[in-house]
Amino acid sequence: MAAAVAGEEEVTNRQVILKRYVTGCPTVEDMEVVTGTLRLAVPPGSPAVLVKNLYLSCDPYMRTRMTKHAVPSFVPDYVPGKVLDNCGVSKVVLSGHPDFKPGDLLWGVTGWEEYTLIPNPVFCHMINHREFPLSYYTGVLGLTAYAGLFEVAKAKKGEYVFVSAAAGAVGQIVGQLAKLTGCYVVGSAGSDHKVNLLKAKFGFDDAFNYKKELDLNAALKRCFPHGIDVYFENVGGAMLDAVLDNMRHRGRVAVCGQVSQYNLERPDSVDLFRLVGKHIRMEGFLVSEYAGEYRRRFEEEMARYLTEGKVVCVEDVAEGIEAAPAALVGLFAGRNVGKQVVVVARE
Amino acid sequence: MAAAVAGEEEVTNRQVILKRYVTGCPTVEDMEVVTGTLRLAVPPGSPAVLVKNLYLSCDPYMRTRMTKHAVPSFVPDYVPGKVLDNCGVSKVVLSGHPDFKPGDLLWGVTGWEEYTLIPNPVFCHMINHREFPLSYYTGVLGLTAYAGLFEVAKAKKGEYVFVSAAAGAVGQIVGQLAKLTGCYVVGSAGSDHKVNLLKAKFGFDDAFNYKKELDLNAALKRCFPHGIDVYFENVGGAMLDAVLDNMRHRGRVAVCGQVSQYNLERPDSVDLFRLVGKHIRMEGFLVSEYAGEYRRRFEEEMARYLTEGKVVCVEDVAEGIEAAPAALVGLFAGRNVGKQVVVVARE
Repeated sequence: MAAAVAGEEEVTNRQVILKRYVTGCPTVEDMEVVTGTLRLAVPPGSPAVLVKNLYLSCDPYMRTRMTKHAVPSFVPDYVPGKVLDNCGVSKVVLSGHPDFKPGDLLWGVTGWEEYTLIPNPVFCHMINHREFPLSYYTGVLGLTAYAGLFEVAKAKKGEYVFVSAAAGAVGQIVGQLAKLTGCYVVGSAGSDHKVNLLKAKFGFDDAFNYKKELDLNAALKRCFPHGIDVYFENVGGAMLDAVLDNMRHRGRVAVCGQVSQYNLERPDSVDLFRLVGKHIRMEGFLVSEYAGEYRRRFEEEMARYLTEGKVVCVEDVAEGIEAAPAALVGLFAGRNVGKQVVVVARE
Repeated sequence: MAAAVAGEEEVTNRQVILKRYVTGCPTVEDMEVVTGTLRLAVPPGSPAVLVKNLYLSCDPYMRTRMTKHAVPSFVPDYVPGKVLDNCGVSKVVLSGHPDFKPGDLLWGVTGWEEYTLIPNPVFCHMINHREFPLSYYTGVLGLTAYAGLFEVAKAKKGEYVFVSAAAGAVGQIVGQLAKLTGCYVVGSAGSDHKVNLLKAKFGFDDAFNYKKELDLNAALKRCFPHGIDVYFENVGGAMLDAVLDNMRHRGRVAVCGQVSQYNLERPDSVDLFRLVGKHIRMEGFLVSEYAGEYRRRFEEEMARYLTEGKVVCVEDVAEGIEAAPAALVGLFAGRNVGKQVVVVARE
């Protein structure tokens, strides 16, 4: 093992902790930025890595972890008094793991703090393309859009694709990948600025501001007179309900997220019997399922698109760990334009 | 064209008509049995067949057609003053169609009446196995259970299968087919008598009376400590909600019906975000999609199971067209035990 496994230096370590379980819409007061210290060391003989966090991903699903669940979800609920975690980009400081050495850049699950000791870095991956902004590994170089569109929804050339929260982290990539595949693509977003972005920057065929539509069903009918083959679902609730009325026979709904639902006591009612008449398939997925060779091939494909300018991405960057709680809360007001990232440190 | 295309005889024709659109739970007063007359004739040159109806299928989904929908469903809404229709078994009286001749026994879509003129019998099929009770063609020899379990849910040997409304027309067959496939099968039903039937007659591994369970989630956990791979969905609402908490990774929900939801103004709220964490697939289907060679192979396979006693079925037979409205209404109180059929005439 080449890397150092112990050090004695102690650093200050600012952390975002959950202050209390959240009811309704999260506020910055539900979190707290605290300053602790961390000894730069990894336990001797352990495969741990100690990383310095550079970029943290802000994702709506994190809200679902801020409530205590009777039935555990796919990821553990956050615990009051403890640091939050999520995907991010980090730099290895110390390593007890044979695959990683100090100075390596990783992306994977890390803490919402300046330094994190990762006991077993099974969810950490090397960053292979340092020619792009590192933050891209929290967004466009993540696999969510790609796996959801192609593996789950199985979008094909010529199909009609609808994307909600289309100016968000995943939506913008879904739309561009669908266009590259030869689909007709429409997105919804929550401001005219975002709608313009969808059409002018991301090349969507059409887009609408859902806040200005009195009738979502009518808006979808206007945009999709022939119906929808693929719905990339990021919002849930009333939009999903309206989409189900506009799906085509054998339509597919790839369920990535349901941001409109996370703050509700009970989710909105959706008439699921409509799955029957048109043989609609609704399927959820987690990006973590698509690993190994598949992910490596994706990374090369997406890197090529980025280099050739075939895919672009827009990020909304919050500066400093102190800005993280507000950045997370802002997602639920649609304050972010594009992928919401927090820069903890630039290197 | 061998068959007669016109006749002059006039017969009385009792019909079940929709009296008014239904709100909430349907009652017999929402329908009316009226007596008209019908001239036994098919329009010259048309492919119509005139049939005498023998057995009518009573299905919960019919309730969904008793409300006027803004967005048309897969089948037209019923119209006040007009006769209801659904699948049934009929005998050809007169035919303008080259594939059918007087005396042939058909199953397919027909009217809730004594005689029906079917303008174009595209949804009519010949009955190939006259050794079974003809009514079997409204139930066990229909393809719903088979297609849903194998084509939609893709149940495989060794998997954990849960069936709701398991003593009903489709559920009882699903459970038996899943057992023949080597699955572990549990069903829910609404009375102890039905629960006993599931275990004693249909060979379910376990079963529970959902009306006696204070906590459906706990009941499912008790029956499936390792979780559910396949849920054959007949009821919706609270049961679906509880099932989603108990599904295994890559579980499948074949949505056949949602009988608990049809009488509600707004469907019950179900947290669909749970599809994400365990990559659950929910897929609706219509039996009419599975036709041609597939259906013929199924019919032979099921006939073999019936002959060998590997599949049995229980029917609840209402006598006479006048009994049809009450038989339909009874479905929503769970009054039927097994497949609900109405005998209009025995030959």
